[in-house]
Amino acid sequence: MLDVKFDQRVSLITLAVGDLERAAAFYEAMGWRRVPSPDGVIAFDLIGQTLGLYDRAALAEDLGLPATGIGGFSGVTLSHNVRNEEDVAPLMARAEAAGGRILRPAGEVFWGGFIGYFADLDGHVWEIAHNPFSTLGPNGEFRWEGY
Amino acid sequence: MLDVKFDQRVSLITLAVGDLERAAAFYEAMGWRRVPSPDGVIAFDLIGQTLGLYDRAALAEDLGLPATGIGGFSGVTLSHNVRNEEDVAPLMARAEAAGGRILRPAGEVFWGGFIGYFADLDGHVWEIAHNPFSTLGPNGEFRWEGY
Repeated sequence: MLDVKFDQRVSLITLAVGDLERAAAFYEAMGWRRVPSPDGVIAFDLIGQTLGLYDRAALAEDLGLPATGIGGFSGVTLSHNVRNEEDVAPLMARAEAAGGRILRPAGEVFWGGFIGYFADLDGHVWEIAHNPFSTLGPNGEFRWEGY
Repeated sequence: MLDVKFDQRVSLITLAVGDLERAAAFYEAMGWRRVPSPDGVIAFDLIGQTLGLYDRAALAEDLGLPATGIGGFSGVTLSHNVRNEEDVAPLMARAEAAGGRILRPAGEVFWGGFIGYFADLDGHVWEIAHNPFSTLGPNGEFRWEGY
């Protein structure tokens, strides 16, 4: 029974949100385009993966977990890496213009990269990063050792 | 300055953990293999993306956020979709055997899928899902409309 393989992939990243359309508008203001989806969920296709927005209370109920902690920071961050150091600040500015909260302005970091952190409207934390040691693939793919 | 494109991709998913090696052992028990990385971070390459484990206190400090909420559930879930309904229960069993906590045992869900939820050692929530409407790509890629 234990021989089914757990492949190294994440099919769907779900972010719980207080207001679906408001949350979607933030990502659309960032330039993303949603794909058609049923009421109650909003989906953005990424590389071999989808990011979904889902109602906070509904998710808590699905999971059998209290909704009280939701909206805080539990220790998950999503990084969006860019090809050039100069691309970090404009994306941080765009996130702020869309209503995001800057947690750490664009700047150099100890490991040699250039990064910024922002929180989206529901407190989900994003990093915009240029990592000179992990160059991106032709379609923006990331892997630890770079392309 | 606002014309840099925010492509639809997540380069890195970072999970904050209390003990790096303990957390890595869980994912290794699930069958994942790490790639070489510097001290202080553990990396697993996924599809066009890396999942990283990073110290909880260090991440909070990097972000300028209190570490107190970390370890709770803030509303992010990661789904691992499988090709067959029968694959869900064995992966849930494997997660439990590795020390994970079952939040919702494998079973049918209202939208027509078959899913289970578990939390890893640090409380990060995973869904193991079979979605008959979104068939996976040749390498396990996921997109909302299916392949």
